Amino acid sequence: MSLQKYIDKAEVLIEALPYITKFNGKIIVIKYGGSAMLDEELKRKVIEDIVLLKMVGFKPIIVHGGGKEISKWVKKSGMEPNFIEGLRVTDEATIELVEMVLGKVNNELVRLVHSLGVKALGVSGMDGDLLQVDKKIIEAGDIGFVGDVKQVNPQVIYDLLDDDYLPIVYPVGIGDDGKPYNINADEAAGAIAKAIGAEKLAFLTDTEGVYMDINDPDSRISQLGVEEAQKLIEEGVIAGGMIPKIMNCVEAVEGGVNRVHILDGRLPHCVLLEIFTNKGIGTMILKDSEVEK
Amino acid sequence: MSLQKYIDKAEVLIEALPYITKFNGKIIVIKYGGSAMLDEELKRKVIEDIVLLKMVGFKPIIVHGGGKEISKWVKKSGMEPNFIEGLRVTDEATIELVEMVLGKVNNELVRLVHSLGVKALGVSGMDGDLLQVDKKIIEAGDIGFVGDVKQVNPQVIYDLLDDDYLPIVYPVGIGDDGKPYNINADEAAGAIAKAIGAEKLAFLTDTEGVYMDINDPDSRISQLGVEEAQKLIEEGVIAGGMIPKIMNCVEAVEGGVNRVHILDGRLPHCVLLEIFTNKGIGTMILKDSEVEK
Amino acid sequence: MSLQKYIDKAEVLIEALPYITKFNGKIIVIKYGGSAMLDEELKRKVIEDIVLLKMVGFKPIIVHGGGKEISKWVKKSGMEPNFIEGLRVTDEATIELVEMVLGKVNNELVRLVHSLGVKALGVSGMDGDLLQVDKKIIEAGDIGFVGDVKQVNPQVIYDLLDDDYLPIVYPVGIGDDGKPYNINADEAAGAIAKAIGAEKLAFLTDTEGVYMDINDPDSRISQLGVEEAQKLIEEGVIAGGMIPKIMNCVEAVEGGVNRVHILDGRLPHCVLLEIFTNKGIGTMILKDSEVEK
Amino acid sequence: MSLQKYIDKAEVLIEALPYITKFNGKIIVIKYGGSAMLDEELKRKVIEDIVLLKMVGFKPIIVHGGGKEISKWVKKSGMEPNFIEGLRVTDEATIELVEMVLGKVNNELVRLVHSLGVKALGVSGMDGDLLQVDKKIIEAGDIGFVGDVKQVNPQVIYDLLDDDYLPIVYPVGIGDDGKPYNINADEAAGAIAKAIGAEKLAFLTDTEGVYMDINDPDSRISQLGVEEAQKLIEEGVIAGGMIPKIMNCVEAVEGGVNRVHILDGRLPHCVLLEIFTNKGIGTMILKDSEVEK
Amino acid sequence: MSLQKYIDKAEVLIEALPYITKFNGKIIVIKYGGSAMLDEELKRKVIEDIVLLKMVGFKPIIVHGGGKEISKWVKKSGMEPNFIEGLRVTDEATIELVEMVLGKVNNELVRLVHSLGVKALGVSGMDGDLLQVDKKIIEAGDIGFVGDVKQVNPQVIYDLLDDDYLPIVYPVGIGDDGKPYNINADEAAGAIAKAIGAEKLAFLTDTEGVYMDINDPDSRISQLGVEEAQKLIEEGVIAGGMIPKIMNCVEAVEGGVNRVHILDGRLPHCVLLEIFTNKGIGTMILKDSEVEK
Amino acid sequence: MSLQKYIDKAEVLIEALPYITKFNGKIIVIKYGGSAMLDEELKRKVIEDIVLLKMVGFKPIIVHGGGKEISKWVKKSGMEPNFIEGLRVTDEATIELVEMVLGKVNNELVRLVHSLGVKALGVSGMDGDLLQVDKKIIEAGDIGFVGDVKQVNPQVIYDLLDDDYLPIVYPVGIGDDGKPYNINADEAAGAIAKAIGAEKLAFLTDTEGVYMDINDPDSRISQLGVEEAQKLIEEGVIAGGMIPKIMNCVEAVEGGVNRVHILDGRLPHCVLLEIFTNKGIGTMILKDSEVEK
Repeated sequence: MSLQKYIDKAEVLIEALPYITKFNGKIIVIKYGGSAMLDEELKRKVIEDIVLLKMVGFKPIIVHGGGKEISKWVKKSGMEPNFIEGLRVTDEATIELVEMVLGKVNNELVRLVHSLGVKALGVSGMDGDLLQVDKKIIEAGDIGFVGDVKQVNPQVIYDLLDDDYLPIVYPVGIGDDGKPYNINADEAAGAIAKAIGAEKLAFLTDTEGVYMDINDPDSRISQLGVEEAQKLIEEGVIAGGMIPKIMNCVEAVEGGVNRVHILDGRLPHCVLLEIFTNKGIGTMILKDSEVEK
Repeated sequence: MSLQKYIDKAEVLIEALPYITKFNGKIIVIKYGGSAMLDEELKRKVIEDIVLLKMVGFKPIIVHGGGKEISKWVKKSGMEPNFIEGLRVTDEATIELVEMVLGKVNNELVRLVHSLGVKALGVSGMDGDLLQVDKKIIEAGDIGFVGDVKQVNPQVIYDLLDDDYLPIVYPVGIGDDGKPYNINADEAAGAIAKAIGAEKLAFLTDTEGVYMDINDPDSRISQLGVEEAQKLIEEGVIAGGMIPKIMNCVEAVEGGVNRVHILDGRLPHCVLLEIFTNKGIGTMILKDSEVEK
Repeated sequence: MSLQKYIDKAEVLIEALPYITKFNGKIIVIKYGGSAMLDEELKRKVIEDIVLLKMVGFKPIIVHGGGKEISKWVKKSGMEPNFIEGLRVTDEATIELVEMVLGKVNNELVRLVHSLGVKALGVSGMDGDLLQVDKKIIEAGDIGFVGDVKQVNPQVIYDLLDDDYLPIVYPVGIGDDGKPYNINADEAAGAIAKAIGAEKLAFLTDTEGVYMDINDPDSRISQLGVEEAQKLIEEGVIAGGMIPKIMNCVEAVEGGVNRVHILDGRLPHCVLLEIFTNKGIGTMILKDSEVEK
Repeated sequence: MSLQKYIDKAEVLIEALPYITKFNGKIIVIKYGGSAMLDEELKRKVIEDIVLLKMVGFKPIIVHGGGKEISKWVKKSGMEPNFIEGLRVTDEATIELVEMVLGKVNNELVRLVHSLGVKALGVSGMDGDLLQVDKKIIEAGDIGFVGDVKQVNPQVIYDLLDDDYLPIVYPVGIGDDGKPYNINADEAAGAIAKAIGAEKLAFLTDTEGVYMDINDPDSRISQLGVEEAQKLIEEGVIAGGMIPKIMNCVEAVEGGVNRVHILDGRLPHCVLLEIFTNKGIGTMILKDSEVEK
Repeated sequence: MSLQKYIDKAEVLIEALPYITKFNGKIIVIKYGGSAMLDEELKRKVIEDIVLLKMVGFKPIIVHGGGKEISKWVKKSGMEPNFIEGLRVTDEATIELVEMVLGKVNNELVRLVHSLGVKALGVSGMDGDLLQVDKKIIEAGDIGFVGDVKQVNPQVIYDLLDDDYLPIVYPVGIGDDGKPYNINADEAAGAIAKAIGAEKLAFLTDTEGVYMDINDPDSRISQLGVEEAQKLIEEGVIAGGMIPKIMNCVEAVEGGVNRVHILDGRLPHCVLLEIFTNKGIGTMILKDSEVEK
Repeated sequence: MSLQKYIDKAEVLIEALPYITKFNGKIIVIKYGGSAMLDEELKRKVIEDIVLLKMVGFKPIIVHGGGKEISKWVKKSGMEPNFIEGLRVTDEATIELVEMVLGKVNNELVRLVHSLGVKALGVSGMDGDLLQVDKKIIEAGDIGFVGDVKQVNPQVIYDLLDDDYLPIVYPVGIGDDGKPYNINADEAAGAIAKAIGAEKLAFLTDTEGVYMDINDPDSRISQLGVEEAQKLIEEGVIAGGMIPKIMNCVEAVEGGVNRVHILDGRLPHCVLLEIFTNKGIGTMILKDSEVEK
């Protein structure tokens, strides 16, 4: 490679300076899931991005689910995955499998982060009493060991950040009965981001963001105020599976998180692209007063 | 209950004072396994003991295996448990199951400790790079992802103790290839006790200790010096599965652990009995010069 | 002793767990006096109790008087004890004797605590300017060097607790004239408990508690709200020497101390009985809203 | 007062600068006793000196006895002071009085220091287990509760210095039997100075120092090396009560204290004169190699 | 010198005790300038005073200008000093010279302080972004690189005080254009004193203070309330160059500085005279409610 | 810019990961001078590089000279630059100018670093007594206020690094006479690097490195062991002005600095190129045993 090529690369590093300066010491929660979790190539790139954030002074926290892997193991164990209103019916055998599978996925991420030179520590929502849950009650039937976050005890996360670990969280919490409950990973990520006072919360999804017209690729909304978001839901512009995602984002912003991002996890290095360039990708949810016109 | 009964109970608490004073702030590693792990009643009593140690100023660390539970899941998954020289042949599918099952067992212990009012945090040997392993090579064949401890990085344990957590460790470490390797729990407990400078190391076993004559219940050896231990192995007095256990104890003593105990995990509250009474139970391995005649 | 006896003892320790958990790190001020101070057997038991509290994570502080010992020395020195309205007339020779005798009693407690393996440090109300007093003025005559607490400077107590000492306080404070003044030990204990933000304050007395009918041993009041207490004083149910004691308790509760206990110091291990069992002994003064019906 | 007078005073303060700079943060142990303790005027001046040292950055520690006051109280109590080889025969009644009287003297000093604006804390050799003693055995008879320092536990002094207190120590220590023992104050001061790594140790005495010829006031020895000192003892130049004093000094120097001073406590502000001027007063004991020729 | 002379000197040190006690740990900002800066003898005395303050527990900060020295160098460089309304017209060449000359003066002070045994660190208003400025706009013309303090970032001063340095500041700050701007030293001293929460601010001037009648040396005002000061300005009693000085003082008092002093820098040891004696020199500006009648 | 371009840039950042990991928390001293100081474009790039190092976890320290700027001001002041054996004859007027000019250059760097979002603090070798010097004596004549480093007091640098400042040092130290002395910047950088335990020391020069044959651009030596370096000097391969530079490097390596680099300051981003790529530029001096064959 010619010397000029190297100099050009140095210039790229220098371009990152103002972004590094801006977010130095800030906490960022990354909900990791979807395609970025299934494709080995994408997985590595996401984790590289997060490790870089750690090295340059951010305090990233990974929260991950593992829905597809769980379904695979449920089948493998001879059980039939069963959903009511999109929620997995989670009997005792299933929750056992859920924590096992999520633990395994967690371990893989811990190993990957370590191989890149950064200290990681995997925690469930039960470690240090991180996530206390209420059993989720829906009218359509008993869905078993599924919970909603009742309270977050962020001390364990603060302890790990202070000791310079990258915390990697999987969303199984403790119920009042002392038993494990599965929590939706998006909900867990949002609750942790709020409780810990994160500057940013990023959801890695399999979509490019929110569109005014789902059929028009040019209609992506770059910035979305929380009131505007609620209006779009009422008007039906935001619909289907996107509704709970957006509601999660809205709650996080209302809970004090400055910027919430819906990123396309299928895009290599989407995390760095969002943070280290002025190329707005995905959709950013924020306070209405801060939306740029 | 009469007032006198209460006063008697208070006396019992007071009797514990000198023992509490003696071990205040000391680290104790407890290898938890065997019957004490399978029987719910015994399990609760062991964990209560350890939680009490934590509350009165000790710094306990639990290291646990899960052999029987692993075998159960191996069969459940349609695989056939396969051993060479007593070592589980651990192919890629098996190691995956191993970390899943140990993670599940670990979570149960974390929940149990929390229910008793103490903060716990479960860690694998991969978290914070705690246990680095070499692949175990035996002549009789390739046993796959089984490792020997190459190096212990105790920082993560120190960090957790400093932040007042009870660390609960399961022995899956990282190999040079970045992959998970199963480690014998006794070996892991011994290696951690040495690396961290533990005062005590206790193995919960399904035996009452070491006997001069296995058929004579009155011949239990209360205290065993390390040279004496090696002599007894050579002479065949200590034999079979007890040999690696005792060798582990010997190594720990030589590595600086003051007292190593082989306790009978089938005895309710065996940990408290050992520590809070002058009733010597099980067999204690120590430096020859410190054996009481 | 049989193995079962040992196991039973271990069970007793385990029963204490929830109480230890509940009060971990909390400050408890114990006013030590009366019979529990005169009887060597009782004295040892009280100090054992307090040392145990220290070892299991409480932060106890002892405040003690020494009225009978002072009277003994006054006589021994050829002076005549002289009281006005129950208050010792304390001339210059007497206050000199007071601080000498209280200092001696204090030293005995310091030695006793050390013999049980805990670090103690004796302080007067003059050390670190702990207790600043106003001269006590009563109409019936000049009672000399007797003071009321004007201000507590709790820094010295915080410093000693931070350095892990058990502070043992005797109530001689400094007046505006830079001279020593004797303070009622109950008053000093209450003032310190308030100033330091104690969770609990316990008075060791020579009574079983407060009774609705002093002649009916079954009429002891277990829990007493502060308004109820004041009403009982007005109604004459609480009378005599119990009035200032109860007023002290009321002030402490109003000053932020959660629970104030009047315990029977003649009962062996009364402190442990109160704290480590659900056997309510003595009378507990608390906010009216928290009285259990 | 004229402005010039004020300016002259400022010049005096400035002259102290190099001495303040030199000893900043250094520990100095002052054995306080003799006339400087009996005369109220001298007492105040000594304490002012020490308080000033504290304020300008030194870390002074006071160790005091109280021999004459003790004798006074012994007589007052109807007992007869009794000495064997110059050592007070200290039965149980006497040691009780000793700790009472020393405690009273200690309190006076604490109050005096506080009145000058500095935080003091009085400690006996029993607080924090500061002075552990062996019973002193002499051939001429049993002298009771008199001890020699066996071990100093300096932690309590470090704790108090770290928390910015001026520690004031009286030399009653704990014996192996858990009972109080009187210690010679010179010996206690020397032992503490050694154990704590003091820079300086100063004995306030009723003599102007050591003389080559006791009858020639011009023959005072300003600087005395430890070997020279031992030679002078052998030669009989140093004799009588001066021998144990000098031996104490020699031991302190050999134990690592840089400079040991015998000062004339009858001289107003003798401590400041020694430290803040180049006027060598008294006799300084130091390593032979550091004696100025 | 006779022994008595030494004792008298010790007495002088002792007289300072209550003043040392009173201001221990307090921050004092000293604006150093005028004759006290030009006369080598006076310079040394001022710096000795400040070094003494540091040694006895104050936290002094020096802020200095260097007007006359700058004018000298401007001429030396062949430029013509140019003033509009008393403000130096500061073009690019001049500001370059300003920072060079002030830096040189600063270095001299740093060396002088070090020679007296105290650690100093010289900082400009640009170090650690200490002084951010707005360009000063006056109607009479463009005066170039002259600024008013927009914001003080006191972190750098706190850091240096915590690390036990004596900070010596010269008033060149950074403008929004990233360029250096000269600031009036009185203004800089006042702004720093306010931002840092100083207890005292002292201006060394070439006047004995404020007079009711400038021709009557007996009419010096010892204490001046801020409202009274403003009234005297309106009435013309305070006039000319004294007006901005007094306004600076008023602002400092209103900004929370307890006592602001106008001292006569021509008086040797004026700083010590003010602080260590009850001889009120100069004029003290304070809250009206605190003026002594 | 296309999305792919952004992704490519992210890849460049990721490539830097292993280098960031490797040097995290390490101290690097950069001697800044030559063309990189004169050309505004190059200056900005060098400072950007160093600021980036700071942001990603390095602890850089800048040491700079200013020879050409000094000569310019000497002439401007009507003096004639005068050199003996390449050393500037530095009389009182000249040293005054030297510290002024270096201070000005220092301020510019401080402002530049701040504009990039990092806290800087400029220090001379006199601040905190950083550089103590001996007057340099050469046979050819008196060269005035020129010094050699006698002792480095690194505390001030440690303090600034701990408080997260980027220290920028100019090499004027204090002599035994309390006067300022000019020090060669290369020498100062080497002395500081050794004293502070730097991992790396980099000299920015106007050469591409050391050549075996100065006329053959392909003969650059990438790695040079210290013994080999001395041999090359003896053999005359290294000659002229390169000799003192290399001797400085040799001393630094022998003093414990791991890697010393001679970099071409004329190459944009030469610092980043050296640290963040495997493109070896310039010449690296290291222990002979660590030279790669």
